[in-house]
Amino acid sequence: MMGSDDENAALSSEPLYNPDLLRLDFSQIKTKFDPPISPSEPGEALIVRPLCPADYDKGFVQLLSQLTKVGNISKDQFLRRYTTMKACPNTYYVTVIEDTRSSHIVGSATLIVEQKFIHECAVRGRLEDVVVSDDYRGKQLGKLIIMTITLLAQHLNCYKITLDCKDRMIPLYTGLGYKLEQGGSNYMQIRFDNKKPFKL
Amino acid sequence: MMGSDDENAALSSEPLYNPDLLRLDFSQIKTKFDPPISPSEPGEALIVRPLCPADYDKGFVQLLSQLTKVGNISKDQFLRRYTTMKACPNTYYVTVIEDTRSSHIVGSATLIVEQKFIHECAVRGRLEDVVVSDDYRGKQLGKLIIMTITLLAQHLNCYKITLDCKDRMIPLYTGLGYKLEQGGSNYMQIRFDNKKPFKL
Repeated sequence: MMGSDDENAALSSEPLYNPDLLRLDFSQIKTKFDPPISPSEPGEALIVRPLCPADYDKGFVQLLSQLTKVGNISKDQFLRRYTTMKACPNTYYVTVIEDTRSSHIVGSATLIVEQKFIHECAVRGRLEDVVVSDDYRGKQLGKLIIMTITLLAQHLNCYKITLDCKDRMIPLYTGLGYKLEQGGSNYMQIRFDNKKPFKL
Repeated sequence: MMGSDDENAALSSEPLYNPDLLRLDFSQIKTKFDPPISPSEPGEALIVRPLCPADYDKGFVQLLSQLTKVGNISKDQFLRRYTTMKACPNTYYVTVIEDTRSSHIVGSATLIVEQKFIHECAVRGRLEDVVVSDDYRGKQLGKLIIMTITLLAQHLNCYKITLDCKDRMIPLYTGLGYKLEQGGSNYMQIRFDNKKPFKL
């Protein structure tokens, strides 16, 4: 759909979710930040906000490739995925950290809110796809984005938030309040491979 | 909205997702069923199908309470939750096994399809809330519903399907093809408690 430059600019900076949700009270959390930072004050020239369509041109895909295999995603593919995420109300909270000096995305994490019938039709949060650019280590941005998603999940009334991780990440997440339940903390998977039909 | 009896009946049996998706080819899977059963032939008087609104009156909530704490869910709450799940396209595949002799739901599992940017804007499946009624053990219904969700995920082009489970369930899922990655299979959580504000 062709629109004016102003319309296109407005569309491209439209947030995936309501940015007001990121006004989270970091003053009460046990995790100490030194120097103190928060989603509203993440550090000089940095901002924490929802993903928007323009982030394709701000290095969002390149950042994700520091996390895992991303492949070549065209702008069209990105915008289609953005649109289908947005079409699921109250589900996808892809959150980014932007360095406004370079207009580049330097960190990201996602809260997925899953609807349940159990626990009186509760919602449950999941922390996914946490990544901070190699060039931005040592600024507490990993802790910041993880605690942002965690408080957001609490704010959205999730009865719990969960994540899956490798052994080496357990100390980090334990330090942020996450727990490994004795005898109850296994993550299992089947990876499908389209090149050879998976023989289940 | 008030409608005729016919309209209400039609609405109440409307499936959460397209039942044609359950025409899955079980003939090629490694997991052996003895006697052989499948989603289209799950056993005498049994059917495997998507959840529908009428399932509130067929014991769906009571079945879930065999899995975990459900609480008292009114029909209204159930229908609201059903509606909000349905409002998320291509996401919630709550699947039930009904005993048509008693018109009761005797088993259930859910496939959640999560959208990603990674892996070329892939989708990823999750197996959640698996439960078979105590009275229906020994009929392979647990294996059936798990393999149904697993093949459905593959059919929907998920690049992987994952689950979280307690230690004692590992042998069952390993037997069905799920893998525990060495050093990479930890599930962590924070449970929020609204009675006392969670001090993160």
